[in-house]
Formats: sequence, C-alpha cells, structure tokens
Amino acid sequence: MNADTGLLSPVWPGTGMDTLLADEAWVSAMLEFEVALARTQARLGVIPSSAVEPIEAAARAAIDVADLAVRARGSANPVVELVRELTAAVADPEAAEYVHRGSTSQDVFDSAAMLLAARALRATDADLIRVADALAGLADEHRHTPMAGRTLTQQAVPTTFGLKAAGWLTLVLDARDRLRQVLPTLPVQLGGAAGTLAAYLEYARAAGVPAEGHAAKLTEGVAAELGLRAPAAPWHTQRMPIVDLGWVVVAVTGALGKVAVDVLGATRTEVGEVVEPAGEKSGLSSAMPQKRNPVLATLLVSAARQAPGYAQMLGQAMLSEDERSAGGWQAEWQPLREALRLAGGAAHTAAELVSGLRVVPERMAANLSSGGGTIVAERLNVALAPVLGKATAKALLGRIAGQAAAGAGRFDDLLRNAPELASLGDRLPELLAPENYLGAADELIDCVLSRRLTS
Amino acid sequence: MNADTGLLSPVWPGTGMDTLLADEAWVSAMLEFEVALARTQARLGVIPSSAVEPIEAAARAAIDVADLAVRARGSANPVVELVRELTAAVADPEAAEYVHRGSTSQDVFDSAAMLLAARALRATDADLIRVADALAGLADEHRHTPMAGRTLTQQAVPTTFGLKAAGWLTLVLDARDRLRQVLPTLPVQLGGAAGTLAAYLEYARAAGVPAEGHAAKLTEGVAAELGLRAPAAPWHTQRMPIVDLGWVVVAVTGALGKVAVDVLGATRTEVGEVVEPAGEKSGLSSAMPQKRNPVLATLLVSAARQAPGYAQMLGQAMLSEDERSAGGWQAEWQPLREALRLAGGAAHTAAELVSGLRVVPERMAANLSSGGGTIVAERLNVALAPVLGKATAKALLGRIAGQAAAGAGRFDDLLRNAPELASLGDRLPELLAPENYLGAADELIDCVLSRRLTS
Amino acid sequence: MNADTGLLSPVWPGTGMDTLLADEAWVSAMLEFEVALARTQARLGVIPSSAVEPIEAAARAAIDVADLAVRARGSANPVVELVRELTAAVADPEAAEYVHRGSTSQDVFDSAAMLLAARALRATDADLIRVADALAGLADEHRHTPMAGRTLTQQAVPTTFGLKAAGWLTLVLDARDRLRQVLPTLPVQLGGAAGTLAAYLEYARAAGVPAEGHAAKLTEGVAAELGLRAPAAPWHTQRMPIVDLGWVVVAVTGALGKVAVDVLGATRTEVGEVVEPAGEKSGLSSAMPQKRNPVLATLLVSAARQAPGYAQMLGQAMLSEDERSAGGWQAEWQPLREALRLAGGAAHTAAELVSGLRVVPERMAANLSSGGGTIVAERLNVALAPVLGKATAKALLGRIAGQAAAGAGRFDDLLRNAPELASLGDRLPELLAPENYLGAADELIDCVLSRRLTS
Amino acid sequence: MNADTGLLSPVWPGTGMDTLLADEAWVSAMLEFEVALARTQARLGVIPSSAVEPIEAAARAAIDVADLAVRARGSANPVVELVRELTAAVADPEAAEYVHRGSTSQDVFDSAAMLLAARALRATDADLIRVADALAGLADEHRHTPMAGRTLTQQAVPTTFGLKAAGWLTLVLDARDRLRQVLPTLPVQLGGAAGTLAAYLEYARAAGVPAEGHAAKLTEGVAAELGLRAPAAPWHTQRMPIVDLGWVVVAVTGALGKVAVDVLGATRTEVGEVVEPAGEKSGLSSAMPQKRNPVLATLLVSAARQAPGYAQMLGQAMLSEDERSAGGWQAEWQPLREALRLAGGAAHTAAELVSGLRVVPERMAANLSSGGGTIVAERLNVALAPVLGKATAKALLGRIAGQAAAGAGRFDDLLRNAPELASLGDRLPELLAPENYLGAADELIDCVLSRRLTS
Repeated sequence: MNADTGLLSPVWPGTGMDTLLADEAWVSAMLEFEVALARTQARLGVIPSSAVEPIEAAARAAIDVADLAVRARGSANPVVELVRELTAAVADPEAAEYVHRGSTSQDVFDSAAMLLAARALRATDADLIRVADALAGLADEHRHTPMAGRTLTQQAVPTTFGLKAAGWLTLVLDARDRLRQVLPTLPVQLGGAAGTLAAYLEYARAAGVPAEGHAAKLTEGVAAELGLRAPAAPWHTQRMPIVDLGWVVVAVTGALGKVAVDVLGATRTEVGEVVEPAGEKSGLSSAMPQKRNPVLATLLVSAARQAPGYAQMLGQAMLSEDERSAGGWQAEWQPLREALRLAGGAAHTAAELVSGLRVVPERMAANLSSGGGTIVAERLNVALAPVLGKATAKALLGRIAGQAAAGAGRFDDLLRNAPELASLGDRLPELLAPENYLGAADELIDCVLSRRLTS
Repeated sequence: MNADTGLLSPVWPGTGMDTLLADEAWVSAMLEFEVALARTQARLGVIPSSAVEPIEAAARAAIDVADLAVRARGSANPVVELVRELTAAVADPEAAEYVHRGSTSQDVFDSAAMLLAARALRATDADLIRVADALAGLADEHRHTPMAGRTLTQQAVPTTFGLKAAGWLTLVLDARDRLRQVLPTLPVQLGGAAGTLAAYLEYARAAGVPAEGHAAKLTEGVAAELGLRAPAAPWHTQRMPIVDLGWVVVAVTGALGKVAVDVLGATRTEVGEVVEPAGEKSGLSSAMPQKRNPVLATLLVSAARQAPGYAQMLGQAMLSEDERSAGGWQAEWQPLREALRLAGGAAHTAAELVSGLRVVPERMAANLSSGGGTIVAERLNVALAPVLGKATAKALLGRIAGQAAAGAGRFDDLLRNAPELASLGDRLPELLAPENYLGAADELIDCVLSRRLTS
Repeated sequence: MNADTGLLSPVWPGTGMDTLLADEAWVSAMLEFEVALARTQARLGVIPSSAVEPIEAAARAAIDVADLAVRARGSANPVVELVRELTAAVADPEAAEYVHRGSTSQDVFDSAAMLLAARALRATDADLIRVADALAGLADEHRHTPMAGRTLTQQAVPTTFGLKAAGWLTLVLDARDRLRQVLPTLPVQLGGAAGTLAAYLEYARAAGVPAEGHAAKLTEGVAAELGLRAPAAPWHTQRMPIVDLGWVVVAVTGALGKVAVDVLGATRTEVGEVVEPAGEKSGLSSAMPQKRNPVLATLLVSAARQAPGYAQMLGQAMLSEDERSAGGWQAEWQPLREALRLAGGAAHTAAELVSGLRVVPERMAANLSSGGGTIVAERLNVALAPVLGKATAKALLGRIAGQAAAGAGRFDDLLRNAPELASLGDRLPELLAPENYLGAADELIDCVLSRRLTS
Repeated sequence: MNADTGLLSPVWPGTGMDTLLADEAWVSAMLEFEVALARTQARLGVIPSSAVEPIEAAARAAIDVADLAVRARGSANPVVELVRELTAAVADPEAAEYVHRGSTSQDVFDSAAMLLAARALRATDADLIRVADALAGLADEHRHTPMAGRTLTQQAVPTTFGLKAAGWLTLVLDARDRLRQVLPTLPVQLGGAAGTLAAYLEYARAAGVPAEGHAAKLTEGVAAELGLRAPAAPWHTQRMPIVDLGWVVVAVTGALGKVAVDVLGATRTEVGEVVEPAGEKSGLSSAMPQKRNPVLATLLVSAARQAPGYAQMLGQAMLSEDERSAGGWQAEWQPLREALRLAGGAAHTAAELVSGLRVVPERMAANLSSGGGTIVAERLNVALAPVLGKATAKALLGRIAGQAAAGAGRFDDLLRNAPELASLGDRLPELLAPENYLGAADELIDCVLSRRLTS
C-alpha cells in the first residue's frame, strides 16, 4: 500500500483528524458537493427532480482513491476524473446527464475543502474547550502555589502556577476566538469556469428558469445544503479564506505550543515542577529503563514548529493570477490538510496533557528558595530606593547577588550582614518571603477566569 | 553612515512608512511609554506630580540611535540603555528617581511596538480606502467591458473588466476588515519583571496607594495615554498580537499582490489590456529606450512575496518559554517592522497604481475574439447538450477546437460547416458573441459594490 | 481507509515517489537498519551469528502501519513500538534478545530517513538527467530560433529559444550538482541513547569484544550495510544533513519551477510560443471543451511554491537542544518526506514536459515583430549614440516608441520619417532585424552545453 | 533621520555587518561595478582609456542614499537613478558618454550584491574560525568532565562536556565548509538587457572590437576586477546563487543557534552548568538587581529563529519568469541583506560567547548524581540482560526508578536492596559511577578535533 497513515506526524493519528481529512474524506466531500448541487438545481427547476436520487446513489459508490490520485495528474486536480467516474456510476443514463451541471473543478474542490476545514475546526474547538476547562481548573486550584517566574532562563521574581495556567488559558481562549470567528465565514465556491457562473445560468435559462437572481439562489442553496457561507461572489482567485485558515492554525498550535514549551521547561530533570500524565506505555524510551519522556508536550511542540511554515505556504496563495491560478491553487491543498491536522491533533493532545498534568508544589517551593532570596531582589530594591536611591540600591544588591553566586555565602545571609541594609531593620524576613511578592497574580487570574465564562 | 533608508525595499521609502517605523520612531515610542507611565503613576499618587514635567522634558532630548543600537547588545534589547540615558537626562535628580518606576524592558518595548503598529495600520488603512474607492470606480465603469476570463493561462470563458475589478475590491475590503478588526485590540504591555506587576504594586504600596485594583488602574491609565487596549493580563509570552499582525500584513499585501499579478499579466506586451500610470520618470529602463515597465505592480508583488515569510517568523513567536523568552522575543522585532512597512508601502503604492490605471477595452475585445469563438465553447456545449448529450457535445467541440488550433481554419468557420451543429440553426452568431455569455457578472459587481458601502 | 495516497499533491502520485516514501517504505527502512545492526554486531562478535537469520526473517513480517502510527503517539516516535513488534516476531526467543542491541529510537529513525532520502534523490537524479538531455536538445535545435526577450513583462530585446533552453539547462545542471554533492554525504546515525554509543560498547565489552575502536567499526559496518556515510560522530542534534536536504529540494524544484513559469508565460493564449505535450486525457477541463491546460507546468509550479516552506521547517531543525530534541526532531519528519516527494515528483513531471514540449517558432517570430522594431530600440540607441549622444538618442527613441504606442503609426515607419535618424542612412532595415541583435546568444549556448558534457 | 541602524536586531550592530551591508555600502558596490566595467571596456578597447579616470573620480562623489531610495521607486530599483547621478557627476562630458556602456540595472545590482555577500561571508568566516578554535579548546579541555546527557528534557545517560563542545564544533566546521564552498562561486552578473550581452557587443563592434569571444572576455575582466567568479552565462533569472546564500546563512546561524540553545539550557538557574562571559554592563536587567542574563546566547537564538524564514524568501527567488522577473527579483534584496547580517552578527557574537564561556564542572557533577544513579539505568540493563533477559531487566529497573521518583528512596539504595540484583554481586558501585559509562566519548572528540585540523 503506497499510503501515508500519519506515521511521520504522531501528533494526529488516532485523534479523529485521520478520518476527517484522509483522501477518502476528501473524495466524499467532493461528492457531497455534487449531490448538493444536483439537489439545489432540482429544487430550482434547472434539472428534473428524478435525477437527484440516481446521482445520490452513485455518489455512495466506492472510489479507488489511490488510482484517482494517479489519474489526477492528467488535469492537475482530481475533480475531472472523479466527475467522469461519478457520471459513469449513475445507473440512469438520463440522470447522468445532470451530474456536475454548469460546474467546474474548482467549485467542487474548494467547496469540499471548506466543508472539511469546517469539520476539522469544529472537532478542534471541542478539544480546545476541554483544554480551557482543565486550564481554568489549574489556574484556580493553584492560585496560591508560588513558583519562580523566569526570564531569559533565569529566576526573576516569584509568580504562581495559577497565573502561569491563566496565561496558557488566555492563549487558548484567544485561539478559540479566532477559530470561532473564521468558522462561520468559510464559503462555498460557486463560480463556474471563470467566476461568472455563466454555464449555471445558461443551463437554467435552457430549462426555462429566469437567469436573474439565479446566481444568488443557487449559491445560497448549495451553501445551505453544505452548511457553508454563501459569499457575495466567487473566490477562485480571491484566496482570503485560505489565509484565514492558516492564521487559525497558527493561533491554535501556537497557543498549545506555548503550554508545551513551559511544560517541557518545568519537566526538566533538574526542575521537576510538573509531570506529564503517564499511560502504561507512554513516554517510554527504547533504550533507557528510567525514562518517562514528556511525549505529549513533545508532540505539541512538533506541531507548533511546523504550523507557521504551512501558514506561509497558504499565505502565498494570495498570489493567484487570472481567474484560476496555474500552480498557486494546487500548492494550497496538501499544506492546508497538514495544517488542519496539526491543529486538530494538537488540540486533542493538549486535552490529554493538561487534564492529567501533575503539579509538584514542593519542587516549585524548593526551586523558589534555592537562591536564598535573590528572586526578590527587585523587591528589596524598592524597599531600599527611598534610602539609597534606586540605582545605588540596585548596584548594591547586584553586587551582593554576585558574591552569593561566587560562593561567598547565601544571599540572605550576606544581606543580614550588610551594613547598608540596616535601615530595613527587622523587615528583612518579611521582604524575603516569595509569597509576599506576588503582585497582582491573584487578580489577574480572576480576570482571565471571568473572560472564559463570558467568551 | 551605517544605516538603511529603504534602498533595498523600494516599495516603502517616501510612503510615510519610513518616518513611522524608523529607529528614531521606535525610540520616541519607547519614551512615550515612559512618559505615559509617569503621568499615570502621578495621577494615581504613586509618584509626585512634580516628577512628570522633568521626565517629559528629558524624553524630548535627542538620542543617538546608532550608538544606542550598538549598546543594546549588552542587554539584548535597547531599553536598558535607553532608560539609563533618559534617567541621566532628567534635570531634577529627585524626578530622575521616578523614571521607569516598577517597570521592565518588555513593558517599554512591547508597548512601543504596538503604538507604532497602530500608527502604521492607520496609515495603511487610509491608503486602502483610496484603493477601494478607485477599484469601485473601475468596477462600475467597466461593468460592460468584456474581456477574456483566463484559467491556467488559457482563455476560458468571457468575463468583464468590471468583475475583475470587483474581485480585487473584494480582497481589499477583506483586508480592511481584518486590519480594522485587529487595530483596536493592540494591547499595551504592563507586567513588570515577570508579568505579576509586583514592583508596580510595591511602589504603589510604598507611596501609600492601595495595591488592590492598582494593576487594572495602572494598565488602563497607561493604555488610555497611548491609545492602546488594556488587556486582561500581561502578554509577555502570550504573543497572539504578534500573530494577528502577521495575519493582517499577509491579508493586505496579498490582496494588493493579487491586483498586481493580474495587472502584470494584462500588461504583457502581447496582451496589452491595461497600462500602468506613468510619471515622467517612472518605469524607465537604464538600457532600453522603449520600455515602460509596470513598476508599481512590480513593487506590489515584491511585497506580497516577502510578507508570508515574515508572518511565518512572527508565528514562531508563540513558542516563547517562561515569563520572557530568550531569543523568541528578540526574533520578532525586525520582522515585525519590515512586515508593517511592506503592508503600508504596498497600500500607498496600490493607491497610485489603481487610481491611474489605464484600461484598454479595444485590446480586451481583440484578445477576446482572437480565438474565433473558442472562448464560448462551453456555452455551445450547453446548447448542444440536449441534442447530443453533454459528453458527446463536449468531445465534438473539443475536436473542432483542436482542428482550429492545428490551423484547419477559424473555430467559428469550422462550426458553421459542422453537420452535427445543424440543430442550432441560425442561433450560432448569437451564441458566439462573448458579450452574451457573461453570466451573473453584473449582479456580482453589484453585490461587491454594496458590500463596500455597508462595510 | 484513513490514508493519504497523494490525492492533494498530484505532482508525485505514480512517479515512483509514492512507493519510495510511503509509510510502509519507512517501516521497511527502519527494519533494514535493525537487520544491518544485527549483521554488523554478529560480524564483530557482539551477538551470536545464529541470531541474524531469525531477525532477518522477522523483519520480513507484515506490519500494520496504520495501527503503528497510532501507537507511535505513546513515545512520540514509531520506533519503540516497532522494535517491540519486531522482537515479538522473532521466532527464536534467544535471538529475540539480540534485536536493537544497544540501540535507540533515533539511530533507527534517522538512518531509515537517510536511506530513503538517498533512494529518493537517486530516482530524482535519474529524471533530472532526462530533463537535462531534453533541454540540451532544445538548446541546440533552437539556437537560431529568435524570440522576444522579456523583462518586467515587456518585450525588451531579442533572444533565442535556444538560449532560453540553455538557461533552463543551467539550472538543472546546478540542481544536479547540488544533489550529487549531498547524496554521498548522507550519514548513518549511530549514537545510542545520547550520542556516546555507551550501550553499544557495553554490550561489546560484555561479549568480550574490546571497546577500543568499536564505535568506529560498528558505525562503518552499519553504514556499509546501508550504503550510507559513516560520520565522524553521531548527529542526534547536529542536524546539518536535514538542512542540506532542504537546500537540494529547493534547488531541484526551483530549477524546474523556473522552467515551468516560462512555459506558462509562453503558453498563454495570446503568446502561444510553446505547447505542452498532450496525452489523450491530459490538460482537459471539466467544463470547457476547448481547453488544453498546461498541467505539467502547473504541477511544477505547485511544487516550487511549496518547497521553500518545507526547507524553512527543515532549517528550524538546527535549533535542537540537548542530546535529543523534544519537538524539534519530530517536526522534521513529515516536512522531509513531503519535500523529497515534491522534488522527485517534479523531476519526473519535468522530464515529461520538456521531452515533449512543442515549440512554435512562427508565433515567436510574429510576437517579435509585433512592435514594429521597438524590441531593437536599444540597438538603435547604440547606433545613434556617437551622433546624438547616448542620453539624447535614448530620449528620442523613447519618444518615438511612445508615439507608436499611442497609435501614431508603427515604430519602424515613424523612424523612417524621423529627420534625426537621417544619419543612419540605409542601415535602418539591417538595424531593425531582430536576428541581427542576438548578442552572444550562440556562444553562451555553447558554454552551457559544454558544461553539461563535463559535469 | 528616517533610517535603521540595527536597533531592532541587536545581534549585528557594531559587529562590522553594519558597515559592510548598509545602504552606503550597497551604493559603493554598485559604483565599483561601474568602474570595473569602464576599466575592462577600456582595456578591451571598447571605450577610450581617458574615460576611466573621470568615471572613477565621479564614483567617489557622495550620494544621498536616502534620497536615492525614494527615487528608486520610479524604476523599482536604485540603479537607474544612480547611473543618472553618476553620469552627471563625471566632469568630462565625453567621458560621461562611456558610463554604464551596454549595461543594465540588473548587471549592476546583482554584481554589487555578490560583492557584498562575498565580503560579508569572508568576515563571517573569520569569526567562525575564532569560534572553532575556542570550541576545540573546550572539547579538549573538558574531555574528562562528565555531565548528564539529556534527551527529551530528561537526564538520559552520562556524556562529557568535551563531547558536547565537539558536537558544537562539528556544526561550526560544517557551516564553514558550506560557506567556503559557496564563497568562490559567487558570480558577477553581466548579461545586458535580457541576458544576451547584445548592447555590450554592439558597442564593442562600433568601436572596432571583434564581437566574437568578447562576451567571455568582458565577463572575465569585470569578474577579475571585482574578485567574483565569471559564470558560463548570465543568471538574470537563474537564481541559484541566491538559494545557495540562503543555505549558507541557515547553516551558519543554525550551527550557532544549536550552541546557544544548549548554553541557555545549561544556564538555567536550576542547572547552572555554564555561565556566559559577562562584561561590566552586559546581561543586566532594567528591573532586577540579581539578574545576569545570557544575552549572547539570546542573540544567537534570535538570529537562528529568523534565518530559515529569510532562506524561504530567497528560495522563492527561483520562480523568476522571463529574462527579468517583475517582483521576484526585487523581493530578494532586503531578505538577502538581513540574512547575511544575521549570519555575520551571529558569528561575531558566538566568538564572544564561546571564547569566554565559563564551565562549572561541580554543577555538572552534582546534577549527574542527583538521580542516585538512574542515569546509568541503561548500563544496569546491559549488565542484567544475560541473567534476567533484556526486557524483564528493563521493566524491573523502570519499576525501581518509578519508586525512587515517587519518593520511596534513592534509586541506588533501592537497587542495593532489590533481590533481583543480587547476581551483580559487588559490581554495583562500579556500575553506578557515571564516569564509567561514557562510551566512546573520548574517541569521538578525537575524531572531531582531527577533522578540524584537516579541514
């Protein structure tokens, strides 16, 4: 079998994306378009009602997709041969005349692509809801779990794991907003050979149906059949929907990729602040008995690293010349499928990850205190500023932190012995406690959680 | 002078984008943030009101940006040194203490970036309006100007230049929609060292201002000063606004790039259907006296080919670890600037192009009739389908078209002599007239024009 | 069947790339590595010779790749489960102990990937040779076929179709050079868990084989079995070979994409200078009887537009942390496969295209003369320069060309009547003949053809 | 001043790349081409020798690049206006006639670009040599410094810091190989208006110089003047050199990016195994007194994240239609400059980083032993395999490691008490020592070091 089943992209096999976006799904969606067109044309009186059922029946016949894929080379798209095959499969020769009436390859292919994109996005959104629910739980549960905030790899100031989870949640809500914005805009394609719908209208006229207003009725009819939007005009070479889908995919995979890079950082052996959920067989190494690899986060990063590249390819689709592009259009298809799969697979994977994520507050606490209080040096700076001036205080604290790093003692011990800090009196212990320097973490979590409830 | 002035990207010099996004503009915007912060903190009682004016005055001092650029290497961002310089420039030493109070590099830089992005997008939108106006004029004026619709480089069926312009207009309206959607969401950055606003609150507390609610008040205050959105939480490593900007840039440059590829196709010597507006010195070759190059369309394509690559870089920004990324953040800056410039420069250039575009209906007519009617073969197919069957008719017409292409005679002459077409009687002249096969072109133009009025 | 067979990427189905790079091929290649390892370890005395045959037999057993793809999620790569399955399939339980001895997932996967890349590149090169042969033929055959050289869409000065074909040939030779440079460098991967080969050596030591020099022997042995290069050290996170493959793919698809954009331009209805080879069913439209679409060139452009995006993804692979990247490595696989397929499919498609390309010299001649000699305006400039000065002559000729374009008459007629040109005497006809202004076209063709013979 | 000085890309200001690739450098290089052309044409007898000096003098005149950048819009490239300005600056009106004789914009621009690319690559290579030297020193010095090898974020098996440095060195040598391969191939551009050199030959003929062989002589002469390669034919739309440069930039920035991601990982507060060299003012935070940020590694990552995107843009250059592309060519320029700057800036920055990198062997040792021996579980597996079978032993060790992770005790203590391990007798301490499980680390370092000496 010369086929791909996802072996090289483990973020999506088994997540539903394989079924939704396989070649067979694509063929089915193209046939759904042909059926929707026939139904609509019958309803509008362009073709006889009796033609519909035989076309529907033929559309259920099995297609050899691998063979179709090879034959697609002859016309640089799979539609010509598929229509030939569908026509031949219509039992009633009169009905066969009414297949694909007035239509063109791009109407079929683009409508099918939007249909599948809509389905993939809906499945993706369902998983994003699970992700958001789990993250909201983590944000609330850990609103008082302090941990080190880190910038440019270094411990900076304290934060909480709840705020970190709220940050992740923000991105997931952002991604859902973008997905749900684009989903209802995905348009049916109905333009005929070059976007004027001329043949559709010519057939209507030939059947005694007035041409005036027919384009809109036909477009709306087919759109309604397929659950897609009826656009103001065909978009054969107005590829904004393709750009939008690339944007959504980057938003989704990027949001989850951010979760993943943080999980990976926190999972490092030396950090150990979170642990991925482990199935019996998951995270194993083929070599090392002790390994429990963060495989879910790894899959998420793999998706997020690819997605912007696919969006780049989809963005290039805008450069589509004339009324149908020679090469630009065809370059969209595989990137679009892969991009949608990465997003859907990532959402599914992220739901697994965050709903089972084990948080280790004691490691967070241990890491937080490992610097002997350097992590609140900024706060000490604030406290000392009125006495020493902001810059002088900063230089002093930097010097002491440097001595601590060089092995001269713990930062807090050195502080206690520093004459310049005498002014602080006995405030030092209170100042040094990380849990006293969490800023607005709690309020920020509330803001994010309440956004989730209203979005 | 070691500087770039746009020599290698002629789509934007002199369009306003040079001024709006140069290094000096960036420095100014960062200083605007510092002033906005001081003003807001003074209003909220965190710093004395008397500190504001000296800080404002210092922010007006000249900065050697080239020198600053070199010094920026020391902290991998220009803010640390800029703050040092600003502080030193504050005449009143007490006021100097209140510069950048509680703040962090990323608050300054990100807010400045959003401020400049907003300005660039506003200027871009103003040009897009000019583009849309001109295109609406072309669509209306040429709604009855027939021309060949082309697919995969071949004449396919007739269309009108009005519909082509309406298609371009659709994309420009789409691009404006996306731009205007993102513009009001551009957020101020206010998070402090690691996104908790801890130092901001600590300074507030030290000044006797209650910490509760202070984060929101401060964020809203600074946002209002700068005309940016106050986000629910800091977005140090939640880079969705960066992704959104990449999307807008691809939408804008892509929409205009589509206009350009069509203009270039129609400008080809052998096609000659449109001519770029020519200034006295524009479009000249350094070698060939006769040349009038389509330079504006060329510039538009150059922008559209680059933009998706920049959006890819911006999409990667989502992979930002911890509370500030080491490398991810810094990789955003230059691509963001270039991307915004390409969009703004392209909008400006497109306005020039479409408002002066010369349409040549007689060349359109000549090209349309050059095939002797092959361009309406689809229509003949519809007419013959009831008699011969759709497939048989298509094969017949294909054969005759092939004979014509092989030099056996003009398509229309061959048709007249074909016995299989006898059934058409004297309908042939009517069927062969391209202007009778324009489908819904006129209605589609109306749909697009009315969308423009309501959007 | 949830599988892809190439339906969305018609440039490669049926070209051999489907068989060479399908999931099954990947599984086979991984099993080839395991067999090569066992053979080499047996030869070196690390495992008993009797274990080899049972492992070879088990490696021939059928694997359910779709099921494996789903199970691969558990370890974020397919190797762990494949090794489990291979081990279970070894009939002799003692021999089963010697499967994958000392090895790690990345050794298996990377070696398999290089094996397949090598096979794909070899097949690609064979097709490139066919392309080069056909292009050399065209270059030689048409060395005296004049045509319009075009710059920025406008007729510029004359050239020959032979020189154009020589330009295409140059790129194909360049692409072959790059391919053949990289092919022999593709390395086997042999590093063990973290690149020290520790377990390989430990098993060797346990079997009484001296550890010294064993790493090199083992690496060279497995490399020889697989026909790959033995690298100086493992490259688990030194991903230069991945970057190199991306480069080759861009070189190949880009070279052929250049051929294709020129073919598309020349195929335009209004230009008509070349015609794609047409099979009985190829190039057909689903709607328009007269259409013969340039489908092969379309497929080539579709590949060339995607390839740089894949190379971008492959370039990101360099950012691979530690001794095995979490996400970076996994993000390489699918892009690498698609990229190789595009290159191989494009080479196969290009061979079809160029070996059957029909050249239409009469259309070239007609287009060349359509401007009434404007195409040699540069030459007239040279001739007039000594009399009028270069700039004055250029302005004059530009003015006359403008008058011709504005309908005042043919360029050559206007020239004949221009008093400023009187100095040319009766040289005008000779000066205006395009075939007299071909520069070094002929010599350049010879240079390129002789490069082909020696490369 | 509307100019960029590198403020948004701190990896390169002050590294020499600013001077080498600024707009002024570009203008100078274009003028160098004009001078080289004049000199060569004078030597070949096409123009009078007396014209050369006035042209050289004029080429030294100051040019207002910002103004030129704006005027470049008129012809979509800066050459037309620059030639006008140069011509006007030639004091001797007769000599002025000989400026740019037979030439075309693309000859000037492309040759200048290659000239600058060559200079930038040479400077980059000099820095890469410094990087390689420093890395060779680290590899040798630390060949016996054990540290944890890590895969998918988890400690895997021991390695040495020397081997890690050798891995970095491998990439730097790879990058140098690619750079030095491409450097001597960078071609001069000499094609005239459409790649036939027709005007060059026409002027030669007019001056009584035989046209035969003149193209090659002229090309070789100008190439020699500029230190570039003389290609077999012009490459106006054969853009392989552009693709090659993208490849080199990805190789260089990627190699150094790999160093940087490892440095960043090792610099994390909780890991602490290496420390960046610190200048007095480097690595400072604007907020936190204790911070010493790994700014050099940050800059390197910022370059490596952008470079593949630029290479993507450069790869698209291959799709250049006709004899000069409208949009494709112009889209190369800014990406090429930025890409070269990133590579050069990164090499300079990396030299700073690695030559001052502080290694902390005691932290490496502490991290290595923190798991109580889990890091050598693979080795224990080998030792137990003959007794228990490979799979059973792996499961047992995995179970014990899990118990240790769950807090049941240190791994080594649990092992000592496990009855299944009794067979190991008193080998356990020896087996558990990380320094006994370094595989071929030492030999691999030697291989890499000797490669450096011979490359």
